[in-house]
Amino acid sequence: MTAERIAAPAPTREQQVLDRIERARRRKAVVREERITLAHGAGGKATQTLVEGLFVEAFRNPRLAPLDDGAILPATGDRLVLTTDSYVVSPLFFPGGDIGDLAVNGTVNDLAVSGARPRYLSAGFILEEGFPVPDLARIVASMAAAARRAGVEVVTGDTKVVQRGKADGCYINTAGVGLLDRPHTYTATAVRPGDAVLVSGPIGEHGVTIMLARGELDIEADVASDTAPLHELVATLLDTAPGVRLMRDATRGGVATILNEVARAAGVAVVVDDAAVPVRPAVNGACEMLGIDPLYVACEGRFVAVVDGDEAEAALAALRGHPLGEGAALIGRIGADPPGLVLLKTAFGGTRIVDTLVGDPLPRIC
Amino acid sequence: MTAERIAAPAPTREQQVLDRIERARRRKAVVREERITLAHGAGGKATQTLVEGLFVEAFRNPRLAPLDDGAILPATGDRLVLTTDSYVVSPLFFPGGDIGDLAVNGTVNDLAVSGARPRYLSAGFILEEGFPVPDLARIVASMAAAARRAGVEVVTGDTKVVQRGKADGCYINTAGVGLLDRPHTYTATAVRPGDAVLVSGPIGEHGVTIMLARGELDIEADVASDTAPLHELVATLLDTAPGVRLMRDATRGGVATILNEVARAAGVAVVVDDAAVPVRPAVNGACEMLGIDPLYVACEGRFVAVVDGDEAEAALAALRGHPLGEGAALIGRIGADPPGLVLLKTAFGGTRIVDTLVGDPLPRIC
Repeated sequence: MTAERIAAPAPTREQQVLDRIERARRRKAVVREERITLAHGAGGKATQTLVEGLFVEAFRNPRLAPLDDGAILPATGDRLVLTTDSYVVSPLFFPGGDIGDLAVNGTVNDLAVSGARPRYLSAGFILEEGFPVPDLARIVASMAAAARRAGVEVVTGDTKVVQRGKADGCYINTAGVGLLDRPHTYTATAVRPGDAVLVSGPIGEHGVTIMLARGELDIEADVASDTAPLHELVATLLDTAPGVRLMRDATRGGVATILNEVARAAGVAVVVDDAAVPVRPAVNGACEMLGIDPLYVACEGRFVAVVDGDEAEAALAALRGHPLGEGAALIGRIGADPPGLVLLKTAFGGTRIVDTLVGDPLPRIC
Repeated sequence: MTAERIAAPAPTREQQVLDRIERARRRKAVVREERITLAHGAGGKATQTLVEGLFVEAFRNPRLAPLDDGAILPATGDRLVLTTDSYVVSPLFFPGGDIGDLAVNGTVNDLAVSGARPRYLSAGFILEEGFPVPDLARIVASMAAAARRAGVEVVTGDTKVVQRGKADGCYINTAGVGLLDRPHTYTATAVRPGDAVLVSGPIGEHGVTIMLARGELDIEADVASDTAPLHELVATLLDTAPGVRLMRDATRGGVATILNEVARAAGVAVVVDDAAVPVRPAVNGACEMLGIDPLYVACEGRFVAVVDGDEAEAALAALRGHPLGEGAALIGRIGADPPGLVLLKTAFGGTRIVDTLVGDPLPRIC
């Protein structure tokens, strides 16, 4: 009887949502596939269609902002940011970090680039039966250390264990709550022609590190993950440059994916100077051997900022004055034409379109 | 160089935490195992030792309350609750619900029994390559419907996909933020002798439903999950009975595990009248065939409340006046002796100790 009473009102609402998803599917031709592929989790086009065609259609509400990393939450006069990420990186331990500090820094960074002061984290673990406890202890200790560095507290958590063969050692979800002290919000639609595009440091280190750490490739390179908490660097930038339009940490899909989202959301052209994009030689070398473009490779301690063009030099100097931003660079400008596209000016005077990531060349990097 | 700079301060702090965990391990003899077992995720003793010996030691801070479901967050005058749960139920669809409404209701209920008004949810999906999109659509629609019923908004999310064989179709994490409008907080340490113990309805329906839905047992029973949002029922109770000490939703580990936590935390005896515990005949029959005690079987739409003994009848009437509480019952009393134990008075006049769940008779019920 209880079940009947509870189940009765559900189908109507569920059916409405399913109908809405189906209408969106026909209208926008999204999520054509019948089955989930690795590309749906890669942060590129397939992820975007999945999010827009399914989750946004289902959950739509004024505060659900699919292009922003966190949700702004009014709370009787104060504003909060809530964000979440699950971490499924493989291997769990890699040069420069592990899944633990990644899970803290990643969520801290989502809060920071939303303009919020990161404060509280939740942590949900999905563990595979047989996972070594010492490894879990290492991961948890790494999380605690990262939380301390980032000035956040892990205030609640959950642990599930699944049977052998139903996970891959350890998955972690962190949700984060941050406080919005500043009056501004930072969104892609604020970007306009004449703005400058900055990155806070050399790109692609995390993604290349993970690929090489898997040991499946016969490539050796002196690289380590750039995983780091960006809240101080972001605060330094915001204190210097009130004309910051948007910040985004360059994780899955890399810098190229962020710039494409900016171009589309603001209806502008993003023109990137290839020679100005900071990439360390070891990362460049590995990318060349692997046949991938560093612009698509994930960072876990770098962000892209679009700032008022008049403030570009001051913003750059501010970033470079902080240890985590000393490799910052001005990599491009926002133009009016062609709207919605990212163009790369190459060293040889050519120009090519940098599209959103398609498929999944780098599964489970975070 | 970046990696060196970032990694350098970490080992010290990490080592401190590892040392702390090791000291706790020697002192309290917790987490003896070298490897994670299914019991670590079952909500019983092994989970408790894992949480206390590892996570609490690592993350310890004033707001980390391992026995409470949510964390109370002061926010410049207002108070918030943040909570999280990952859902790994198998099968994903079962009579009375699915992983989607379970993931919403479970987190809503954690907020509600903390005394908070549930407001915002995050949703993190870990999907297995090859998972059918229509199934995902059903799950998401079910979440949306459940969110609407519970008056919450899913305001942010994340999607990861792992390779075939590295998950089991779909895992979901939800984190929830609730607003604490009431001045009270509800904790086990407030419980005292003379208080009354209530359950909001018949127990064990969710757990039995899941076990039977797996189809591995040759048992048929007319049962459905009791998954439901409890925020209104909780509000009804709190409006009536200002002497509510503690509320807990009876999920993994069941009513028995909650009562043991209360007995230990408050240093009291919990005396339960077996004949007063509401269990539907179909659940009772299935439990008898399976050789398990309904007191250990999970509910997803029931909670335990400990209230001032003088308010017991009023509280019971308030619960029974709400559709989700019409099967509520007064099942026991708090005594002074023996402290830390849960005693069950049987129909035959005997008394036996009801211990915390050991091992994991029911893996992946939520």
